[in-house]
Amino acid sequence: MAEPHDRPTPARLEVWGVTGLPEVGRADDVAGMIAEAVAAQGDALADRDVVVVTQKIVSKAEGAMVEVDPTDPRGHHAVVEAESVRVLRRRGDLAITETRHGFVCANAGVDLSNVEAGWAAVLPDDPDRSARRLRDGLRARTGAEVGVVVSDTFGRPWRRGLTDVAIGSAGLAALVDLRGSTDSLGRELHATEVALVDELAGAAELVMGKADRVPVAVVRGGPDWWFRRGGVRKELVRPPGEDLFR
Amino acid sequence: MAEPHDRPTPARLEVWGVTGLPEVGRADDVAGMIAEAVAAQGDALADRDVVVVTQKIVSKAEGAMVEVDPTDPRGHHAVVEAESVRVLRRRGDLAITETRHGFVCANAGVDLSNVEAGWAAVLPDDPDRSARRLRDGLRARTGAEVGVVVSDTFGRPWRRGLTDVAIGSAGLAALVDLRGSTDSLGRELHATEVALVDELAGAAELVMGKADRVPVAVVRGGPDWWFRRGGVRKELVRPPGEDLFR
Repeated sequence: MAEPHDRPTPARLEVWGVTGLPEVGRADDVAGMIAEAVAAQGDALADRDVVVVTQKIVSKAEGAMVEVDPTDPRGHHAVVEAESVRVLRRRGDLAITETRHGFVCANAGVDLSNVEAGWAAVLPDDPDRSARRLRDGLRARTGAEVGVVVSDTFGRPWRRGLTDVAIGSAGLAALVDLRGSTDSLGRELHATEVALVDELAGAAELVMGKADRVPVAVVRGGPDWWFRRGGVRKELVRPPGEDLFR
Repeated sequence: MAEPHDRPTPARLEVWGVTGLPEVGRADDVAGMIAEAVAAQGDALADRDVVVVTQKIVSKAEGAMVEVDPTDPRGHHAVVEAESVRVLRRRGDLAITETRHGFVCANAGVDLSNVEAGWAAVLPDDPDRSARRLRDGLRARTGAEVGVVVSDTFGRPWRRGLTDVAIGSAGLAALVDLRGSTDSLGRELHATEVALVDELAGAAELVMGKADRVPVAVVRGGPDWWFRRGGVRKELVRPPGEDLFR
């Protein structure tokens, strides 16, 4: 799916958080909210902007919420089980599980923070579809052909700390294939497929911050070749048969 | 090591590649080269810029290079063995190994691309020290108090594609602790230590590109609280005892 890359790197990127968004609820028009918040910042979305949106507000807008009895410690656990197709590791309250989308993450991505007490946000049913809808909505609202990333915060083995990665994307190369390119000494590069949408999600996190209500960021300045049809599930989720750690 | 975070997110970041750097060789003054290249772009480093430098040029400048017989397919393999303290998985030519620094990555980070035939670049002996030296050199050259990240390109389990991560850093919080903060609904956040330097490395990769000779990037606009003493090895390398996948 990834295409060989022989195109120049972008000269300069700007990354900024979209502030002033209202709390998102079920069936809210997130595209409209984003367009208005950007306008209130004195800006407007443009072609080839990348709009990064956290999973949390996508899940809220889509109603991907599950009731959890806050007095029952097993309540959260039961939701995690229901959202998982496989448990890879477990330690105390933490389970590293595989979701039906093929993501491997802590507690199947089920999240109690920034959610009303008694509820948990679960991952959107099809985050690539969520991204496509948001992209369509932003085009309808603003006329701009943007790329969209739905991001979530995942841990990883071997390294401490979390980074934001893409769980869905639209209008973007999820994976950029540098194979077939030559290095600066003219030799062919091997095994250099870069996870573009993950790096975009991480860059966006830098202007978001978990505690602040900045669930949307814009990355401006990307080159033409970033933008094509693509998605996370087809390009980035590693099939178990390819995987050395499952 | 990470400190609780109750400070605002940056409003806007700029990320740009430092172009026009000459090929780096052993004992070259990389700080001087970067300062000159930035000046040739009509800019100058400023306090609180983050300078991201790829491992490759750091290894070249430090002479972290090993001879490999290009006619012997076991030559590369022998270098990988020598650079590894443990092999986690092996498939064909690919070995996922742990380096003496505690990094888990493909082929111990030994790299044949963008290196003269007959040589392999290995990871710097102490990438945090490399970062500190570069930071000191940039201060001496420019007067600017910058943060420095030494980046490398790593794969990861479960997801296809590579992203750039930090193998060394100086003058930056490698890990930002959001625990102790409250979410936007006033509840305490758990387990949200963000790997700041990894997200910076990934953001920088967006303007680098492997095939192009842009081994240095600058991230401008970071807030004061990003900048403190810190390093990757102490903060980001997960001790085996904490790790569920080793």
